[in-house]
Amino acid sequence: MTQPPLAVTVVAQGAMGAGVGRRLARNGVEVRTSLAGRSRASAERAAAAGMRDVEDAALVAVPIVLSIVPPSEAVATVERFAAICRRTGARPLYADLNAVSPETAARVAGIAEAAGMAFADGGIIGGPPREDGYNPAIYVSGAEAPRLAVLRERGGLDIRLIEGPVGAASALKMSYAGITKGLTALASTMMLAATRAGAAEALHAELSQSQPQLLAWFGRMVPSMYAKAYRWAGEMEEIADFIGRDRAESAIYDGAARLYERLAADEAGERREIAALEAFLQRGAKPG
Amino acid sequence: MTQPPLAVTVVAQGAMGAGVGRRLARNGVEVRTSLAGRSRASAERAAAAGMRDVEDAALVAVPIVLSIVPPSEAVATVERFAAICRRTGARPLYADLNAVSPETAARVAGIAEAAGMAFADGGIIGGPPREDGYNPAIYVSGAEAPRLAVLRERGGLDIRLIEGPVGAASALKMSYAGITKGLTALASTMMLAATRAGAAEALHAELSQSQPQLLAWFGRMVPSMYAKAYRWAGEMEEIADFIGRDRAESAIYDGAARLYERLAADEAGERREIAALEAFLQRGAKPG
Repeated sequence: MTQPPLAVTVVAQGAMGAGVGRRLARNGVEVRTSLAGRSRASAERAAAAGMRDVEDAALVAVPIVLSIVPPSEAVATVERFAAICRRTGARPLYADLNAVSPETAARVAGIAEAAGMAFADGGIIGGPPREDGYNPAIYVSGAEAPRLAVLRERGGLDIRLIEGPVGAASALKMSYAGITKGLTALASTMMLAATRAGAAEALHAELSQSQPQLLAWFGRMVPSMYAKAYRWAGEMEEIADFIGRDRAESAIYDGAARLYERLAADEAGERREIAALEAFLQRGAKPG
Repeated sequence: MTQPPLAVTVVAQGAMGAGVGRRLARNGVEVRTSLAGRSRASAERAAAAGMRDVEDAALVAVPIVLSIVPPSEAVATVERFAAICRRTGARPLYADLNAVSPETAARVAGIAEAAGMAFADGGIIGGPPREDGYNPAIYVSGAEAPRLAVLRERGGLDIRLIEGPVGAASALKMSYAGITKGLTALASTMMLAATRAGAAEALHAELSQSQPQLLAWFGRMVPSMYAKAYRWAGEMEEIADFIGRDRAESAIYDGAARLYERLAADEAGERREIAALEAFLQRGAKPG
């Protein structure tokens, strides 16, 4: 018995969106997207992933819409889909898989539901799906989240249903990213400060001796951050909201957001701080 | 040939000061200290370590004075010794081994040198010396620092001379502690936020799977922090100074300082947040 074809809309076409789209397409799912206003690079990623650019009405004429965008675009994205649904009367399940706070997820849910869509909360832990079979964990929560299991069964995604209402999956994503991307910020801050103070060599030597696992972790995570620093800045803001602005420790993530903003500008510009980070991490490669 | 006896003054008698004092005393060094205004617990630690309570004049009639106090007491401590040296004319080498910024170390140096003392900068990485032979690394820098090598040769301490002026050893200490104690703050922040949001179980499970080394590290470092949170708060302030208050990422350490202040109060009081941290970390001990 052949099943009826499954169609899923995935917005947008960044590394993660295109990676998820390709995984679904390779598994026989029809993957729709919208390239309106998107860059040529996005269009190329979408085409390579087997994602089809469609008109607005077709975007929502699917059982499931996945929102995979930078945190700062989560609300604008659901507003766009809500407007299309109001015009067409379509009622897909809208899943927000973005790195946003539970509060932002609740706001997105309210906009989706006011337009008649069902809503599921989600959060992605890990990098984009790869050709070698690697899949990130896609955590989902909320009463409608079980409807996303079809993406595991037929789409090859690692969908993980967790207990709890809308917001639970986002809370997990925030607290996990707060550790991993927070530590990347903290390590970068200290490698840069040690370099400015002339203590880089001594710090690298001491870390090599007493914290070799952390140093190895920095060597993997810090270089992978440069190109993503702009997006991570927004994520740090969401994490500060998640902690609660009334709690003093939320300042940790405000500080991390400012660092990532500066590194994003450095990455696009002179790359002076990035060169300092690279020089620090490559000390390990030198003999002695 | 017997060497003339070596006398060293160590202030104060906290876990680190008493541990260093004991290591020196066990190696035959005469260890002097001052118990004026100190608690009964300090007096007991000093006695157990073989540290001798002496009058002010005898405190400075030694070749070396080691300052091992909370960061917030570093300046008051050197001021006290400077006053004694002015009265007595003694000229010991004053080594500040505290977790202070290079700027604070320079200020301490200025006060010591104005009273005629030589000065060495230092920073201790690791816990107090233990009976099992464990020694922390005591990094020292500055033109006078080579005079501290006698504490390795005759005192059994792990003295490590690093290149650079006064401030270099403090910079190393700041950047190392900024990573390790900063990460402890960040992990505590996220474990508490996840717990408040009902995501503790999911976070623990995901960390167990994808970041087992970090989770094990938290299990060692977080519980060791509770009793030291008050002192660590001051250290976070020094690290923010070290980064430079004009750099936005210094806010990371202001946030960490506030968290440690609150946890110190919780540790002395209701222990509600500490109980939440313990509950999080002990999830790993449960079957399944």
